[in-house]
Amino acid sequence: MNKNYYAILMAGGIGSRFWPVSTTEFPKQFHDMLGTGETLIQKTFNRLSRIIPEENICILTHERYKDLVLEQLPRANPGQLLLEPAMRNTAPCILYASMKIRKENPDAVVLVAPSDHWIEQEEEFAANVKDCFKACAGEDILMTLGITPTFPNTGYGYIEYNRGDDKVKKVVEFTEKPTYETAKKFLEHGNYLWNAGIFIWSVKSILRAFEIFQPEMYRLFKKGELQYNTLGERTFIRKNYAAAENISIDYAILEQSDNIHVLPATFDWNDLGTWGSLYEKLPKDDSGNAVVNARTLTENASNNMIRTTGKKLVVIDGLDDYIVVEKKKVLLIYPKQKEQDIKEVLQKVKQKFGEDLI
Amino acid sequence: MNKNYYAILMAGGIGSRFWPVSTTEFPKQFHDMLGTGETLIQKTFNRLSRIIPEENICILTHERYKDLVLEQLPRANPGQLLLEPAMRNTAPCILYASMKIRKENPDAVVLVAPSDHWIEQEEEFAANVKDCFKACAGEDILMTLGITPTFPNTGYGYIEYNRGDDKVKKVVEFTEKPTYETAKKFLEHGNYLWNAGIFIWSVKSILRAFEIFQPEMYRLFKKGELQYNTLGERTFIRKNYAAAENISIDYAILEQSDNIHVLPATFDWNDLGTWGSLYEKLPKDDSGNAVVNARTLTENASNNMIRTTGKKLVVIDGLDDYIVVEKKKVLLIYPKQKEQDIKEVLQKVKQKFGEDLI
Repeated sequence: MNKNYYAILMAGGIGSRFWPVSTTEFPKQFHDMLGTGETLIQKTFNRLSRIIPEENICILTHERYKDLVLEQLPRANPGQLLLEPAMRNTAPCILYASMKIRKENPDAVVLVAPSDHWIEQEEEFAANVKDCFKACAGEDILMTLGITPTFPNTGYGYIEYNRGDDKVKKVVEFTEKPTYETAKKFLEHGNYLWNAGIFIWSVKSILRAFEIFQPEMYRLFKKGELQYNTLGERTFIRKNYAAAENISIDYAILEQSDNIHVLPATFDWNDLGTWGSLYEKLPKDDSGNAVVNARTLTENASNNMIRTTGKKLVVIDGLDDYIVVEKKKVLLIYPKQKEQDIKEVLQKVKQKFGEDLI
Repeated sequence: MNKNYYAILMAGGIGSRFWPVSTTEFPKQFHDMLGTGETLIQKTFNRLSRIIPEENICILTHERYKDLVLEQLPRANPGQLLLEPAMRNTAPCILYASMKIRKENPDAVVLVAPSDHWIEQEEEFAANVKDCFKACAGEDILMTLGITPTFPNTGYGYIEYNRGDDKVKKVVEFTEKPTYETAKKFLEHGNYLWNAGIFIWSVKSILRAFEIFQPEMYRLFKKGELQYNTLGERTFIRKNYAAAENISIDYAILEQSDNIHVLPATFDWNDLGTWGSLYEKLPKDDSGNAVVNARTLTENASNNMIRTTGKKLVVIDGLDDYIVVEKKKVLLIYPKQKEQDIKEVLQKVKQKFGEDLI
């Protein structure tokens, strides 16, 4: 395996739309959402380790998830964990990780990947990433893997690229969460891809971009140069991390740079962002019910997403298109069509019953 | 308290329409169905002990519930428990208990009462029972407490009585579970009451009736006369009980005798026979949801019966008139209108998943 290949695995999110399974204490990426026997972060780590030396996979997460990561990824050593003392979106943590990587290996090319997405065709994924690694190693470009849209989803970001025969396309523009009408037009145009939050670049290129587009943040983290990969690193990060701007890599860098390129991915992808998207990826019974960790006896019940703890028997009569999720302290019975409102439900739960349930 | 007052508390049922809360292992009467802090058998025992000396309350139950009874009724001594080695409906166990009582006190007057019904006005109940005791002590009659019907329920038995000014009325006829049309006519006629399964008679009168209408069963149990209330009783019962006919007291005696009388009860009564009847008796939130052992956050959710174990938070959107019951191994989401079908669901569960869930 190429020793210059690195990964930044993003594992600090909360996945609040997957409440009550995903909670602040135990977020989505640490759950076996698909009932496969592996948690999402385990699946992702294993997928990356097919192309990237395991010791080169940096796992970025919040301090509170340290034990969860070490427990679920026993092959990772504690030095591979980059612990955020505060939640600061993706730009600061990618900058931090990139500085560490550059210090260890200035020739590194880096894959940035979320830890909680679904990708089935691992071979295709590996081939796509390798193509990007090669492109980035030779050129000062920032790359993303774009997903061919299958429907006008208004919850994703879209990437417009220049038409042409090259495998790797030049990006024209990013559009965050368009209206339904706009999304439909994008699909008609054909030269639009979904932004899956998967990025590839050389450590040199991304740091150069930070220096240009986020000079303040760059200076903040550059101050720690001597401490990175030494015992002094924790102290420096604990002292300085919270001062970084709370901004995503998309806003901080990608939408400002004019050397972004995209490779249309050849694998199927799902962000498992909601119960509905999880439902799509699960096997169904004859009535279209997706069942995880439960036994069911259903009548007049179809297209439901059913999940319990401990193989509970679920008897349902007359529910269609519902999310039925049971765990120790919570039972959620909620229309799948309203899954985007679960975040608001969470706020109400917080107000009414306090923090311990969310 | 009058030493001649006795009670036979019937506590051998299974309450299968209250599945999954009520199970063969742990039936309805041993649950705090109303969330009051007392189980139904505890409430009933306390109600009876206001008028009947505690040591005169015989508790009839199946052998398998012995420990449950002793645990829930710590004031009862083991000698008050009459354990059925087999399920044989109400006639055999009432006969068995009556023989024991007669041997102890031939002047006894006996109240027979289910252990799993709801009665709120304890004073009224006590007054009604005392009136019956007095009537039965002086006369060779069999009495029942009849409930004034509030709607044409087709699930109950009806008692037609002779109009007249006497408090205690002569019964003309019993009708089991009439059609809706018939039930409506009964209510229009006005001289019909619901049969609540609450009976009062002297031990002499009921045994005389058994001797006349169920001579075979009478002979079977008479054989044990010498053993009753001695150490030999268990052996006799274990050997002979199963030979008794599986028949209710209504069919065996009441529908055959012509000296049945009824006192129209002046208390409110509910047999808590189904989730729906339990729902009627519970306090409701603003949307008409009855909630037991749960915390709720509901939207577009009304008239539901919601119960969990351990104060679970239940979030529901869009359910109306449902039973939502969660316990350790089972989650039931079922239309209240179809509550009578829960018995069939139970059969399906048995077939598909085995006995341990029912």
